[in-house]
Amino acid sequence: MYGLIGKMRAARGQRDAIMDVLLASTGAMPGCLSYVIARDPADADAIWVTEVWTDAASHKASLQLPEVQAAIAKARPIIAGFEFQVETHPAGGFGLAAVKNE
Amino acid sequence: MYGLIGKMRAARGQRDAIMDVLLASTGAMPGCLSYVIARDPADADAIWVTEVWTDAASHKASLQLPEVQAAIAKARPIIAGFEFQVETHPAGGFGLAAVKNE
Repeated sequence: MYGLIGKMRAARGQRDAIMDVLLASTGAMPGCLSYVIARDPADADAIWVTEVWTDAASHKASLQLPEVQAAIAKARPIIAGFEFQVETHPAGGFGLAAVKNE
Repeated sequence: MYGLIGKMRAARGQRDAIMDVLLASTGAMPGCLSYVIARDPADADAIWVTEVWTDAASHKASLQLPEVQAAIAKARPIIAGFEFQVETHPAGGFGLAAVKNE
C-alpha cells in the first residue's frame, strides 16, 4: 500500500472553504482505501490529509480524475501552501476500505 | 471526531517486530473508525500511526483494553521514542468505518 500524510495551510480564514471543497469531492476513487480530511485544533489555518492507496500509481492516476481536477481548481486559489508531506507504506490496521477486484 | 497522527521510532532494527505487535493487536475497538500502521520508506526505524476515533474519550478508553495493554507491554521495550504527534479533528472523507449505535 501507499500512503500520504500532509499538512496544508489555508489562506487566512479560508480553512472551512477548503474543507468544503475537499469533503464534497472525496468519494470512492479507484485504488483509494482511506482519505481523511481533518482540522488542526491548534492551528487555525491548518488542514491534515491522510491517504491510503493500493499503490502509488492509483494515487497518481486519481489526480487526473475530473472531480479531483475540479476540486484542485477550486481550492488552489485559497491554499497558502503545503508545510509537510511524508510518503508512507501502510502495512495494515483497521478501517481500510476493501479493494474491488476490477 | 478525534484523530491522532504520530511517528514512532523503533530501537535499531526492531521496526518489523513492533509492526507485528501493532498489526496483531489492532482490530475493532469501540469508537475506532480508522487505525493505520505504516512504515516510513525514507527512515528505516520509523513507524507512522494514523488514527480516527469518534471522540477523545474513546481513544483514551482504548488504552485500557486488555489487548492494547498487552501490545503496549510487548512493544515498549523496543520503542526508542515518539518523535511527532499531532491531534486532529477529522471532518470526513472516505474509508471511515461505520460506528455501531450501541
